Amino acid sequence: MKPSGIVTLTTDFGTSDYYQAVMKGVILSSNPECKIVDITHGISKHAVSEASYVLSSSYKYFPKGTIHLAVVDPGVGSKRLPIMIKTDDYYYVGPDNGIFSFLKDQKNIKVYAIKQPEKVSNTFHGRDIFAPAASKLSKGIKPEELGVEVKDFIKLKIKNPLYSTKRIDGEIIHADSFGNLITNLDAKKIKELIGKNSFKANLADHTITKLLSTYDSSGNDLFLIEGSTEKIEISLKNNSAKDLTKANIGDSVEIIIGNL
Amino acid sequence: MKPSGIVTLTTDFGTSDYYQAVMKGVILSSNPECKIVDITHGISKHAVSEASYVLSSSYKYFPKGTIHLAVVDPGVGSKRLPIMIKTDDYYYVGPDNGIFSFLKDQKNIKVYAIKQPEKVSNTFHGRDIFAPAASKLSKGIKPEELGVEVKDFIKLKIKNPLYSTKRIDGEIIHADSFGNLITNLDAKKIKELIGKNSFKANLADHTITKLLSTYDSSGNDLFLIEGSTEKIEISLKNNSAKDLTKANIGDSVEIIIGNL
Amino acid sequence: MKPSGIVTLTTDFGTSDYYQAVMKGVILSSNPECKIVDITHGISKHAVSEASYVLSSSYKYFPKGTIHLAVVDPGVGSKRLPIMIKTDDYYYVGPDNGIFSFLKDQKNIKVYAIKQPEKVSNTFHGRDIFAPAASKLSKGIKPEELGVEVKDFIKLKIKNPLYSTKRIDGEIIHADSFGNLITNLDAKKIKELIGKNSFKANLADHTITKLLSTYDSSGNDLFLIEGSTEKIEISLKNNSAKDLTKANIGDSVEIIIGNL
Repeated sequence: MKPSGIVTLTTDFGTSDYYQAVMKGVILSSNPECKIVDITHGISKHAVSEASYVLSSSYKYFPKGTIHLAVVDPGVGSKRLPIMIKTDDYYYVGPDNGIFSFLKDQKNIKVYAIKQPEKVSNTFHGRDIFAPAASKLSKGIKPEELGVEVKDFIKLKIKNPLYSTKRIDGEIIHADSFGNLITNLDAKKIKELIGKNSFKANLADHTITKLLSTYDSSGNDLFLIEGSTEKIEISLKNNSAKDLTKANIGDSVEIIIGNL
Repeated sequence: MKPSGIVTLTTDFGTSDYYQAVMKGVILSSNPECKIVDITHGISKHAVSEASYVLSSSYKYFPKGTIHLAVVDPGVGSKRLPIMIKTDDYYYVGPDNGIFSFLKDQKNIKVYAIKQPEKVSNTFHGRDIFAPAASKLSKGIKPEELGVEVKDFIKLKIKNPLYSTKRIDGEIIHADSFGNLITNLDAKKIKELIGKNSFKANLADHTITKLLSTYDSSGNDLFLIEGSTEKIEISLKNNSAKDLTKANIGDSVEIIIGNL
Repeated sequence: MKPSGIVTLTTDFGTSDYYQAVMKGVILSSNPECKIVDITHGISKHAVSEASYVLSSSYKYFPKGTIHLAVVDPGVGSKRLPIMIKTDDYYYVGPDNGIFSFLKDQKNIKVYAIKQPEKVSNTFHGRDIFAPAASKLSKGIKPEELGVEVKDFIKLKIKNPLYSTKRIDGEIIHADSFGNLITNLDAKKIKELIGKNSFKANLADHTITKLLSTYDSSGNDLFLIEGSTEKIEISLKNNSAKDLTKANIGDSVEIIIGNL
């Protein structure tokens, strides 16, 4: 895989501190030609699964050969491994704590434990281990030269939705800054299962009976919509479904089809 | 117009989600040499006129040939057109919903409806239509090849201030993060009209009697000042005029000159 | 010193306004090849010493020849000088208000007052003076051509910690977005002084008795840790020490060693 020269960053560092900038300085010091793109530094603190979701929704829009560097790392300095993952199209660099769970079904995957440099802090591996590795990969250095192949990487347990023609059980997996509630329900499947039937979707004590095709459709009620990642979202026109429902990640969404 | 190779982004997407990053990935996938500059992703949600103000205050500081991509798009997926606007010096790409209102007095303007690619979501035209168009423009592809010329674009109605030698009527059009309240009053005109007279400016129940030349001037009262966009601002030394006055966009500002 | 072609930005402008973007437009208009990296725009409004701390913690991670542009400038338009500082490895550009205090012990320093362009606003020197100067330095123009050498620059008074084998007196100098409380205490010195003794660290009515080596260590009490800038931090596992203690910048931290 030829490097694209791009490194993306996904962290919970925020942007009011200098931590993300120091990583950029380290990357540019070793590869001045590198292009660095922030996916986000706004992951909730220590929220490994949120980072995994965000990265899973964005990695494929970057040129092949891009290095995706992700640091949400409450275990920094402990025994968790620093790793690199190589797929057919991309490299991933970060802690082995489940942040790359979304790669679990990819084929032709190779995982490497990063060789640690001599002087490493116990509190900032983003600067001391991950940024140097990402920078070197972006220059075309092979992962074999930067680490040792290992068998596997850690995957968070993910609850899969249950689909049937009468009842569907899913959950909220993300809320975006517009207040759209993204579920783990595949939009295509849901549309097929509902077909021309009526339905009732329940989220806590809210009931939703409409599946719309644009945010701009009329009405002031909650509705289902196919979001941009092809999952079902629960949304509210020009308003925040999250604020209205107070829903949280992990809350159940059940859809009852027909016979209403 | 030769492209500068720069694309700027102005959105209400925030930076905690991955939406802005996906647009960057799409742009770089088609034009790896493109330089992308965030104007802001912090426009208030759905606030088309705020985006228009922010873009109007910043576009001209970029090199000629820059592509300004703006996505505040509550009507995404509805019938509103996706457009490109070409002026003598810049390209603009975004939804036709008033976001480019500030271009209303520019000459030599051409407007194009963007030809939609085959596969387009109903919820994320930033990724599916606007970013690809901006990226292609940044490579030197002509707008004629990407769309069809149309007659005009949508302009928001803007209330103009009323100027006279005795009384001036304007309004608050923006509050910045320092709490400076930016009005629609032209600073040069106001200074000429006031001259050496005394004056009283009223904003709700606050009365302002000073026109100062720097934020650092003495005193703890509200004052008028010529802001960096050559409009009159209402400010407070080392403090937020917005927090003190609780003023909102659209609030009236009246200035009574002389005879006090 | 050969310019690296990189300009970093450190401001209190926030990212919801367009101010930081206008500076980037100005820089790119004069040097289209320049790479611009945000250290942060999230410095607390008018907090010159906070900006100084952030810059002191990050400048050295950038390639030699980088231009560090810093604008926290409550005195804009007043008599404070706009300056450039040249050290062996970097340039610094910004207002002479103490923001570069951390350079006080560097040798081979040269300070220049920037020649002001003809048309300068009183409210936005970031755009009108600092960005143009930084951009020109990044192209290799010599500071002598952009300004006049002056004797010195303004340094904020910094309270140094007091170290003894029985008692250490320091203070909180920063809180990061994780809620880690960074002190002015040198970690290496503290570890030597404590050695194998027990100790009590006091912060307001909180007492800390552990010095740990990773954030991930067991327990739910406040602990001391060597942070990534080699200072002692007060931290809490997966939580915010700042929220728990309500500590502020400047609060005393005293460590009593032995005899407990």
